[in-house]
Amino acid sequence: MRKVFQEELIQVGEDLIEISKLVTEAIQNATTAFEGADVDLAQDVIAADARIDFLQNGLDERAIDILALQGPVASDLRMIVGSLRMSASLERMGDLARHVAQLARLRYPATVIPEQLTATFKDMARLDLEIIQKVTLLLESRDLEVARDILKLNIRVDDLHLSVFRAIADPAWAETAATTVDVALASRYFERFADHGVSVARKVTYLVTGEWQPEGF
Amino acid sequence: MRKVFQEELIQVGEDLIEISKLVTEAIQNATTAFEGADVDLAQDVIAADARIDFLQNGLDERAIDILALQGPVASDLRMIVGSLRMSASLERMGDLARHVAQLARLRYPATVIPEQLTATFKDMARLDLEIIQKVTLLLESRDLEVARDILKLNIRVDDLHLSVFRAIADPAWAETAATTVDVALASRYFERFADHGVSVARKVTYLVTGEWQPEGF
Repeated sequence: MRKVFQEELIQVGEDLIEISKLVTEAIQNATTAFEGADVDLAQDVIAADARIDFLQNGLDERAIDILALQGPVASDLRMIVGSLRMSASLERMGDLARHVAQLARLRYPATVIPEQLTATFKDMARLDLEIIQKVTLLLESRDLEVARDILKLNIRVDDLHLSVFRAIADPAWAETAATTVDVALASRYFERFADHGVSVARKVTYLVTGEWQPEGF
Repeated sequence: MRKVFQEELIQVGEDLIEISKLVTEAIQNATTAFEGADVDLAQDVIAADARIDFLQNGLDERAIDILALQGPVASDLRMIVGSLRMSASLERMGDLARHVAQLARLRYPATVIPEQLTATFKDMARLDLEIIQKVTLLLESRDLEVARDILKLNIRVDDLHLSVFRAIADPAWAETAATTVDVALASRYFERFADHGVSVARKVTYLVTGEWQPEGF
């Protein structure tokens, strides 16, 4: 019984890693589609999101089965419940990548972002990609140094997000209302993506240390 | 033991209802602050959100204790795990009410929404309020008719959300970029609030019927 249980636990961990890798692919492709107005790639991201949702449901079902059949306690129990929370965060990150792709598709053949903010969005997208890659690494290694890196990357995303809103509020801003909205929403998608990465990092930190650290860690 | 267990389960249900009532108060006050540029009330909503987060954490801890100490199975287990998901949705609805209040505070003494869209936002806010009131009722009654009502209300919120984006895209739109962004974000907050209400409705439906209905119900 215990052997099966350990295998099931390991499988939940592997499911999380698999989802994290799919989210990595999603944000990478969404960003490429977004920057290059590639409608086919955008469509691929949108279609691929169903797979992430499917895997999340499967992970949830597996976790519930473990709870029902194995009655885990203490740290194993917290790991299972934590996995339910982490899978929800990862699923939401997949949704946000899909939203980015949907913006690209909506504005095709134009690009979404006006030239003056192209570099800012490129930086934000690169940081988001780094965050989800580090989430995968964190899930694999449980190295809390990686969790701290994710927190630092998120602060940089927040700064860029703020700078986008400052640019929009500047009297020199001369874009159409539709572009303004696209820029604001896209910036928020990238910022929320990073936030969910931080949620996963905090959850792993909690599972490893047993202590919940509300700010910084 | 079983008696304690049943009491614990009932307590989780009551915790959810209490959080739902606090979220109701939050969106109601946030909306009033938002419509009337009431910065004190906005501040109250922002401060009160910590209480919702606190209760959510408490509910999660209670649920984990039940899982650890009582080893529930079958429908009780699904109820506990479902409560974790529902508490996350309700907590997020509280965040969104706080975001609405934050917009009101940011733009004080001005109002956030230009006159031409005042009525639309009033309708959206009223529907959101109705949705969370029905969420409370649904948690109390488990009456699936109420769940269906929530779904219908959400469709109306989606329509209003779309109409806001159409107004922004219209050539006649003459607001500043800052106002445009506020309008777009506020509309998205109200729309997401309704979405989370639907998540809770679907979860309750699943717990009652045992069947997951991906679209409509």
